[in-house]
Amino acid sequence: MNFCSHCGSSELTFAVPPGDTHARYVCENCGTVHYQNPKVVTGCLPVWEDRVLLCRRAISPMRGLWNVPSGYLENGESVVEGARREVREEAAAEVEVDYLITLYNIERIGQVYLQFVGDLVDGAYGVGPESLESRLFTEAEIPWDDIAFTSSAFTLRRYFADRATGHRQLHRSSYPDVGK
Amino acid sequence: MNFCSHCGSSELTFAVPPGDTHARYVCENCGTVHYQNPKVVTGCLPVWEDRVLLCRRAISPMRGLWNVPSGYLENGESVVEGARREVREEAAAEVEVDYLITLYNIERIGQVYLQFVGDLVDGAYGVGPESLESRLFTEAEIPWDDIAFTSSAFTLRRYFADRATGHRQLHRSSYPDVGK
Repeated sequence: MNFCSHCGSSELTFAVPPGDTHARYVCENCGTVHYQNPKVVTGCLPVWEDRVLLCRRAISPMRGLWNVPSGYLENGESVVEGARREVREEAAAEVEVDYLITLYNIERIGQVYLQFVGDLVDGAYGVGPESLESRLFTEAEIPWDDIAFTSSAFTLRRYFADRATGHRQLHRSSYPDVGK
Repeated sequence: MNFCSHCGSSELTFAVPPGDTHARYVCENCGTVHYQNPKVVTGCLPVWEDRVLLCRRAISPMRGLWNVPSGYLENGESVVEGARREVREEAAAEVEVDYLITLYNIERIGQVYLQFVGDLVDGAYGVGPESLESRLFTEAEIPWDDIAFTSSAFTLRRYFADRATGHRQLHRSSYPDVGK
C-alpha cells in the first residue's frame, strides 16, 4: 500500500491507531484506517460412489498439480454458495454440499480454508477454464505426490480416514499439516 | 475506493477483468486489480457450569446490547487464536476452545461468522475495554430482546437446543436467521 485509496495521499503510516490493538495503514492526510484481514478460501470435495473428484490446475500457483476445487470467497455469496461455484468453475460439475470437513489456517499469508464434502450430482463433470483435467480417484489412486496444496492433502487424508471409521466431522489445523 | 493504493491514480474502473468472473476495481494506469473479499468474524461462547458468558457492548454498533465475544479475524492468527483473543479483549477471560457451533453468513455486507463453544477457565472473567459489563447467564436469564447481533442469537439458540439433546454440532445459516 503506497497511496490512500480514499484521498490519494502518500502520507501513510503503519502503526497502532488509538484504542486499537493491531498496527494498521493509516492515512495522515484524511485519517482513514485501512484494515487488512485474512481471506476465506472455500471449496468442496465432490464424492461419487467410492471416488472423489480432483482437478488439475491450469493456472499458477501449482500449475499441473491436483486440487480439491477451491477458491476465494466472493462478496455477496455464502461460504456454501462459494464452494458450489468453485466446483462449477473448476470441474464443470454440480455438488450437493454435505458437511464441513476442514477449517485450515495459513496464518502467514492470511488464508482460512473452509472445505466441505459433497455429493457429485449424477456423477457428471467436465473441465473448467482453470483446469487442465478433472478425474475421479479411488483412495488408492490419489496422486499424493502431486497434490497442489497442504489444505487439499489435509482434507483428502481426513476424508478417507473418517470414511473408514464412519465418521463425518470437522477437523481444524494449520499449515503445514498435511493430515497424515 | 477513489484512488489506486499502488500508484495513486484516480483512473479506476469497476469491471470484470479478462478471464475473471466478478467485477473488480482495476487501475487503468498501472493495471492493479483490487480484490475485495468477505471478512471473518471469529468468536467463542464461554461456558461455565450451566451458564454462558456474554458481554454488553461499550462500542457501536449495538452499544449497550449483549453479545457473544466476537470480532474480526486478524492477519497472522488462526481462527481459534482469534476467538481466544476476542474473549480476552471483551471479557478479560480465558477459554479452552472446544467445538465450532456456527458458520453464519451475512452476504450483503461480506461477513462470515465462525463461532465456537469453549470452557471458561476457572470461571474467571472481567470487563474488557470494549465492554460495559460481562455476566454469566443461565438459559432462562438470557436477555433475548437485548442481543446485539443475529449471529449471536443464532449461536445461543442452537447451543441451548443442542445442550438439551446432548449434541455438539456445527450449524450453518445466513442472516436474518436468529435460530428459533
